[in-house]
Amino acid sequence: MRNPQSIRGPVIPSRGPLRPLGMDEVRITGGFWAIRQQVNGEATLGHALDWMDRLGWTGNFTAAANGVESRERKGREFADSEVYKIVEAMSWEQGRFPSDELNARIETVTGTFTAAQDDDGYLNTAFGRHWQRPRYDDLAWGHELYCAGHLLQAAVARTRTAGDGPLLEVARRAADHICEVFGESGQGICGHPEIETALVEFARLAGEQRYLDQAALFVERRGYRSLPAHEFGWSYFNDDVPVRKATVFRGHAVRALYLACGAVDVAVETGDDDLLEAVAAQFDRTWARRTHLTGGMGSRHQDEAFGDDFVLPADRAYAETCAGVATVMLAQRLLLATGDSRYAGVVDRVLHNVIATAIGDDGRSFFYANTLHQRTTTRANGDSERLDVGGGPRAPWFEVSCCLPNLARLLASLSSYLVTADDTGLRVHQYADCDVETHLADGRPVGLRVRTSYPEGGEVAVRVTRSGGEPWSISLRVPGWATGAVLTVDDERRPVAPGEAVLTREWAVGQEIRLELPTQPRFIWPDPRIDAVRGCVAVERGPLVLCAESLGENDLDALRVWTGQDPEQTGDGAVVRARFEAPLDSSWPYGDPSGRPGTPVAVHLTPYHRWARRGPSTMRVWLPTT
Amino acid sequence: MRNPQSIRGPVIPSRGPLRPLGMDEVRITGGFWAIRQQVNGEATLGHALDWMDRLGWTGNFTAAANGVESRERKGREFADSEVYKIVEAMSWEQGRFPSDELNARIETVTGTFTAAQDDDGYLNTAFGRHWQRPRYDDLAWGHELYCAGHLLQAAVARTRTAGDGPLLEVARRAADHICEVFGESGQGICGHPEIETALVEFARLAGEQRYLDQAALFVERRGYRSLPAHEFGWSYFNDDVPVRKATVFRGHAVRALYLACGAVDVAVETGDDDLLEAVAAQFDRTWARRTHLTGGMGSRHQDEAFGDDFVLPADRAYAETCAGVATVMLAQRLLLATGDSRYAGVVDRVLHNVIATAIGDDGRSFFYANTLHQRTTTRANGDSERLDVGGGPRAPWFEVSCCLPNLARLLASLSSYLVTADDTGLRVHQYADCDVETHLADGRPVGLRVRTSYPEGGEVAVRVTRSGGEPWSISLRVPGWATGAVLTVDDERRPVAPGEAVLTREWAVGQEIRLELPTQPRFIWPDPRIDAVRGCVAVERGPLVLCAESLGENDLDALRVWTGQDPEQTGDGAVVRARFEAPLDSSWPYGDPSGRPGTPVAVHLTPYHRWARRGPSTMRVWLPTT
Repeated sequence: MRNPQSIRGPVIPSRGPLRPLGMDEVRITGGFWAIRQQVNGEATLGHALDWMDRLGWTGNFTAAANGVESRERKGREFADSEVYKIVEAMSWEQGRFPSDELNARIETVTGTFTAAQDDDGYLNTAFGRHWQRPRYDDLAWGHELYCAGHLLQAAVARTRTAGDGPLLEVARRAADHICEVFGESGQGICGHPEIETALVEFARLAGEQRYLDQAALFVERRGYRSLPAHEFGWSYFNDDVPVRKATVFRGHAVRALYLACGAVDVAVETGDDDLLEAVAAQFDRTWARRTHLTGGMGSRHQDEAFGDDFVLPADRAYAETCAGVATVMLAQRLLLATGDSRYAGVVDRVLHNVIATAIGDDGRSFFYANTLHQRTTTRANGDSERLDVGGGPRAPWFEVSCCLPNLARLLASLSSYLVTADDTGLRVHQYADCDVETHLADGRPVGLRVRTSYPEGGEVAVRVTRSGGEPWSISLRVPGWATGAVLTVDDERRPVAPGEAVLTREWAVGQEIRLELPTQPRFIWPDPRIDAVRGCVAVERGPLVLCAESLGENDLDALRVWTGQDPEQTGDGAVVRARFEAPLDSSWPYGDPSGRPGTPVAVHLTPYHRWARRGPSTMRVWLPTT
Repeated sequence: MRNPQSIRGPVIPSRGPLRPLGMDEVRITGGFWAIRQQVNGEATLGHALDWMDRLGWTGNFTAAANGVESRERKGREFADSEVYKIVEAMSWEQGRFPSDELNARIETVTGTFTAAQDDDGYLNTAFGRHWQRPRYDDLAWGHELYCAGHLLQAAVARTRTAGDGPLLEVARRAADHICEVFGESGQGICGHPEIETALVEFARLAGEQRYLDQAALFVERRGYRSLPAHEFGWSYFNDDVPVRKATVFRGHAVRALYLACGAVDVAVETGDDDLLEAVAAQFDRTWARRTHLTGGMGSRHQDEAFGDDFVLPADRAYAETCAGVATVMLAQRLLLATGDSRYAGVVDRVLHNVIATAIGDDGRSFFYANTLHQRTTTRANGDSERLDVGGGPRAPWFEVSCCLPNLARLLASLSSYLVTADDTGLRVHQYADCDVETHLADGRPVGLRVRTSYPEGGEVAVRVTRSGGEPWSISLRVPGWATGAVLTVDDERRPVAPGEAVLTREWAVGQEIRLELPTQPRFIWPDPRIDAVRGCVAVERGPLVLCAESLGENDLDALRVWTGQDPEQTGDGAVVRARFEAPLDSSWPYGDPSGRPGTPVAVHLTPYHRWARRGPSTMRVWLPTT
């Protein structure tokens, strides 16, 4: 068994085929993700904490500690969780790039948690005081266990990056309290899963079976309609079918994905292969039938939910940013639990097409939902909080601002998603400029330096920086789209198929492996059961989904792409042949399909993650064909 | 000027090119709508009132009258309006088919209104008592003026069918109170329009300029963002743009349509042609760009709202039943105000494809939303209230049950939508078996007997039953789809084009006009800007939209229709040639569009309004083509 406390990462299973590397073992040094990590550390963390201070969400803890009855508690019922999440993000950032100032900020905020905690370990600023609603009075909507889960995750991050401290103590008392109230003899589940995965990670950190048992109880208790009936149905809460009996994710996407993370964690720690297989099958079916091309999940605005199979509208794609974060969390867990590199492919797609899309260049603007089709231009609302969640441009804050700290914690801890160790060597799952220094299971020190033009280009160079002596293997993932990839080592070129290219030998320092992934743009057709994009085509290039964007008067809705000729590469985008075919206006839009003959045009497509960065625009990922 | 009090109908403008006939002048005697009127009178009215009694919505008035502080007020904030609407429906029914029992029920219920009304005329069971929220504290969501509007409409129906009585007095006092609070020197509008159209009709009934002025004030005050900001935007309330400046309907569909009804009413009564033209243009653009094939309006579940232009998803079509009722109300007002028979075509489409769809055969089950595509079968939930609004089967009640009394009042008063009088004669707008006995403007008695196979067939026979002496004109509407229609009178057959066929002559009793409307089924293609149904075709037959429905294992999603041959007529449906092409399953639904070669099949289509009547089923209006 590994020691999950010694590894600086968010998910450290005590068993499984792959050992994740910590952020001290993998450092992102440049390129696409380095700039995003830097902006996250320099802008997003402060931006989010400033907003939470201004809105009084951090102040809720001080008010609770001081018993300020007169002060209205600020924010929605889950506001505490945002503060915890930003503490988690700051803790990972502190692990990645230590700073006294950041450390002091963390200590200030977490100090208020200690002060606000009740004697029996309960900690929530919205419930339980005599002028508030009673504790656990509204499990469906109160989010108390959800908030507690984020507290535990913050404590995991803080402890793994800064060692034991007061936050660990707060979390331990909170976890003990939950075990007492909701243990074997208790009942109840939270409307919003999160506590499950948090308890398992906390059990890994603390080495306490009790927390794992509690997580397993919460997972097994769900699915029996114990939460109250609601317009959105029990599926909204994933309380319609027991976890091991479900066949697909449904209901509120973030809830479903967080729950699945917890179920995988429980399965891994308890050696419950049935449970693991059940969740993996649910994920696979969801990926095959309920996922947007970008890897985004969630088709419905109304209940932030999955639709039925193949209900994947481009224009009302919800593809919530938090669902993207949760998909990365889940896919990484499945990768670690199964060793199946398909799940690394999932992480790749979601990172480059949901996560990268959701953040503005300034690190201070965000998408809550990630539409695949913007029909009309909308303006920024400056520095104001945004009340709705749809369409461009990115907003500095939302009434429900879960996406900001969720992105921040993922980005700060991103290096631990790139490379894993196994019994025989290292596996590189995600391509980014990074330096790897670690040791194999037998203790031999090994090191790699990865340099790449990914995701815009397909060149990957992996140089050995610590040899490790005896033969060991380096495995490079070849993405599913990369047919025709070529691997070069010791001047020997050979084609490699999608999957994994494994090289086992005695490595010398300075020895280099080169992987060339083909990144010419390609047309992608949808399954004909996806009604919403019938008759359309998309274009991808490498891991990037491309889109057509218009800042001007071009009518993207009249665009008709000709697919007789492959898209051409240009810059980091593509050019396709098309016509603009504006239909004739009539008083009733059904009957005669005639349109004006269109003029041939060349349409430039750019990476989807770049859209809505240059001003109000319209955008399409799916392009109607001629 | 006409006397709007003497005509037994819901909309009696004091001017305009067409005079509506009352329910005593037009009686539906058989056929498609007669059976629905009968079921409405025999089942729906009692069903709705029983539910409202059981849920305590009627009891709210008694409790309010008795000052029962302890009793929790039942239902949502707009529950009073449902009671008013069912009184309106019962009043029209009483006018159509008088019964002592029904009359007694009306008197019992309306007696509680009198008792509950405050001394100053204010009447609402949810606000204003010292244990409730203050009056007009929450104009955006409180629905107080909305409820008052339905009270006025109930009083109009009762007075026009039973003469002056206590309900008229209650309504007059409520209207006076509103004029005092919200008059020239006041401010404020209701979040849900309704009071505007109600005040105008009440002004017509009462002959009071004051009520008309108040309606005009409410119409003109809207559009300046005086209601509070909300996630759904000001457009939700139609408070984003002044009525005369808007170019299209947007936001919450029922709100938009009710407001438009009020604006047309104000425009007609004040001779404000600019306002009338503005609303007509908004309607026309909405009809051309934001209306489902069925005539249903509303594309979004989340905010029950119109989408952007051409955003008309079949599967998430909201097409709320109440929006259908409101479209009929508005189109009839535009017909009366302009004389343009296109608006009668709108009424025709909505009646046969939204209204007829929304009601179960038993008159005790209903659709709230009217989807155009049901992917998965769902079960009935028996006699329970339904919490969600989507999909089949029809439900006996909803938490928000506005659709039931709204359908009931429309059906009970339906005969007044069929025929109008103008300076030169009669115009038949809607085809149903009916007897017409009225008089022309100069007082000459005229009569018609209409017999028809409409909507299943296209034969219409109009027999003169009172001659009227001097020449006068009979005008028959030829629907837009009816190319190739033939008119026969005095053994003379002649083709007539869509629009109106007008015959002016000295008529003899017994003389007959025969209109043959072609009802062979026809393919309908969508405007290519409607992304949601690209690559699909629909089939219509006469005024009826058809659909494919499957009760069994047939996979409608794999259906591919061949449009090389016209659909064939069969029974009251059609048969089209198709293949079932199930795509191959893969782990990711984007990339390779290959499918299994399909077997040719003949697919039977039936009227859309008939779907979900035989058990759990899947359904498609829009059929993908080969």
